Amino acid sequence: MKKISIIGASGSIGTQTLDVIRKDSGLSLIGVSVHSNMSKLKEIIMEFHPTAVAITSEKHYEEAKELLNELEFQGEVSFGIEGLIHIATLHEVDTVVTSLVGMVGLKPTVEAIKAGKNIALANKETLVAAGEIVMALADKYHVSILPVDSEHSAIFQSLQGSRHEEVEKIILTASGGPFRGRDKAYLKTVTKEMALKHPNWVMGAKITVDSSTMMNKGLEVIEARWLFDVGYDNIEVYVHPESIIHSMVQYRDNSIIAQLGAPDMRLPIQYALNYPHRALAVANELDLLKIGNLSFQKPDTDTFRLLDLAYTAGRRGGLQTAVMNSANEEAVELFLHDRIRYYRISEVVEETMDQFRNLGEITLDKVLETDIQVRDYVRRKFKEV
Amino acid sequence: MKKISIIGASGSIGTQTLDVIRKDSGLSLIGVSVHSNMSKLKEIIMEFHPTAVAITSEKHYEEAKELLNELEFQGEVSFGIEGLIHIATLHEVDTVVTSLVGMVGLKPTVEAIKAGKNIALANKETLVAAGEIVMALADKYHVSILPVDSEHSAIFQSLQGSRHEEVEKIILTASGGPFRGRDKAYLKTVTKEMALKHPNWVMGAKITVDSSTMMNKGLEVIEARWLFDVGYDNIEVYVHPESIIHSMVQYRDNSIIAQLGAPDMRLPIQYALNYPHRALAVANELDLLKIGNLSFQKPDTDTFRLLDLAYTAGRRGGLQTAVMNSANEEAVELFLHDRIRYYRISEVVEETMDQFRNLGEITLDKVLETDIQVRDYVRRKFKEV
Repeated sequence: MKKISIIGASGSIGTQTLDVIRKDSGLSLIGVSVHSNMSKLKEIIMEFHPTAVAITSEKHYEEAKELLNELEFQGEVSFGIEGLIHIATLHEVDTVVTSLVGMVGLKPTVEAIKAGKNIALANKETLVAAGEIVMALADKYHVSILPVDSEHSAIFQSLQGSRHEEVEKIILTASGGPFRGRDKAYLKTVTKEMALKHPNWVMGAKITVDSSTMMNKGLEVIEARWLFDVGYDNIEVYVHPESIIHSMVQYRDNSIIAQLGAPDMRLPIQYALNYPHRALAVANELDLLKIGNLSFQKPDTDTFRLLDLAYTAGRRGGLQTAVMNSANEEAVELFLHDRIRYYRISEVVEETMDQFRNLGEITLDKVLETDIQVRDYVRRKFKEV
Repeated sequence: MKKISIIGASGSIGTQTLDVIRKDSGLSLIGVSVHSNMSKLKEIIMEFHPTAVAITSEKHYEEAKELLNELEFQGEVSFGIEGLIHIATLHEVDTVVTSLVGMVGLKPTVEAIKAGKNIALANKETLVAAGEIVMALADKYHVSILPVDSEHSAIFQSLQGSRHEEVEKIILTASGGPFRGRDKAYLKTVTKEMALKHPNWVMGAKITVDSSTMMNKGLEVIEARWLFDVGYDNIEVYVHPESIIHSMVQYRDNSIIAQLGAPDMRLPIQYALNYPHRALAVANELDLLKIGNLSFQKPDTDTFRLLDLAYTAGRRGGLQTAVMNSANEEAVELFLHDRIRYYRISEVVEETMDQFRNLGEITLDKVLETDIQVRDYVRRKFKEV
């Protein structure tokens, strides 16, 4: 029985992780954190009986205490960032699912690694902002960073049984988002409603916008660089609108290994939680005969500037990817609040990257500090209307 | 340095194996056999300097001796089936490539296994006719049977790092051959010239015809059953005209791992010779963006009867697959000599399978005996005009 903690259990990945644990008899939920979703917390406690819970939204502490009283919850209760760290480091837990969104995921992930927990990583910021630090720590504490993203899981699965020096390149697939095939002029017309519709996956608003700008793929390129220790010259992106081949690894003998599956996040989640084994299916079966056709195209980086900017940030190294990520998060936030136009997102990111260069050596503190500085800068400088 | 023997060096796979050895500095050719191709033998000796050669065509013994004299060949020379066995069991050899065609490959393969050699298997008859015996022997002598066929190599590569009980099914891909999309009525019009054109691969005449009838895929289903120890209910065939995904493995968590590559036999050959490692590419690189599109269809087993017959023979077990294979070889031979029409091939195979049922327990001797009996029967019964 694998014992699991989830930090950020009420979001999209958290909910799907709960469904995997519900259906996979080899997994059990020990610890869980939510931000503010009390009805979700109630459901989780009643169904999964975790032994420890944390609540991170300060505004909800009292409400949470009342709820836990009412449920006669006998386990441990903790709050805030300390609560997250507690859930991430519970003694009996094997694997911590880091499914919360944002820079707040970084510290508990680092503490989980130091406590010897394997990480089922769904928090992008961890590797985008601090990949160098986090992977070195994972190495030092002999823990596995198990990707939960469908693309990185595909790469990870395609690497099984291989040796690192045999990898020639990684091919990340991208759906291309709702604006695939459109040009720069079209992007000027994009509204919030248009950006929030994704053809293949149902996800949160931020990641749906990132998927439409291809920033999401750029973030994945950076994550892949750290997860699999490959250079940026050895990571390619192919647009693959059907989202069936989730990514590929090309080896030095020119053989390519790929992972395919129905677009169902429960598959990579389940793989991460059972690694190195595979349990009985929770995810839907792929019917390749029904799909019939898989297609591949070169991404249009002239229109989708953010994909190229991610490579630029990655190659610049140090804190540039953290800067890019924070600038993008804040720009998307401004867009979602109708303060900037859609096409401005990439311009904001590019200008901010140039503004914050040469920040010196990367440290965990500096990553967190940079995040605050960059967000503040973007908010003040680009809050256009 | 891996030391290689090739039995059957002058055919299509033999020639491509030589090209792999030529270009892969980790491989060296120790022993080689040819049937009757003296100019090929001369080339091989002059370029690769093997330490042992064998010649199997009795008619060419004298010519071979003269040639070897002329070349001042200092190594060992042997002849006939004993020569094949000698080449297959040379003390210093690590891996034997069994690239000769026909039932004659069976005995040397068995002897190579007993001598502890890994087998890079390109001889179909070995597993189709005697899979049960050969795999049990490989197990007993702790040798690897390394598939050279692109499909089985793809499966083998897709299985790396996995456990047998996690495999749900194997998906063999098939180009569908030149008559894909045609119906039974069309097959009645097929001439020798039409059958000898394959859309994706350049191969010998027999295998090209087998590819057009889909018997080739049927033989591969049977080989897969033995190579990977899966039941016939867990082997599916998908028609995939582009021949880019060479085959796939579906795991019990509904994840599919696939191997892709340019249609270049040197890739699976090189993989088998370097297994478990991957060396620098000899095969061409796949350009998936140029190909653009991969498609998948259900095979039409109503038109391509031999694919279903292979499942039938496999399920019947024992000597039925040997019967089917010998009947097909002889039927194709009759077709290539204009003695029967193309569409008759499957009828001949089906009638012969029914004729030779209940032959009792499978043994190596009985496999060889059955081959002779079946061929004789087919020749006499179906030599139509």
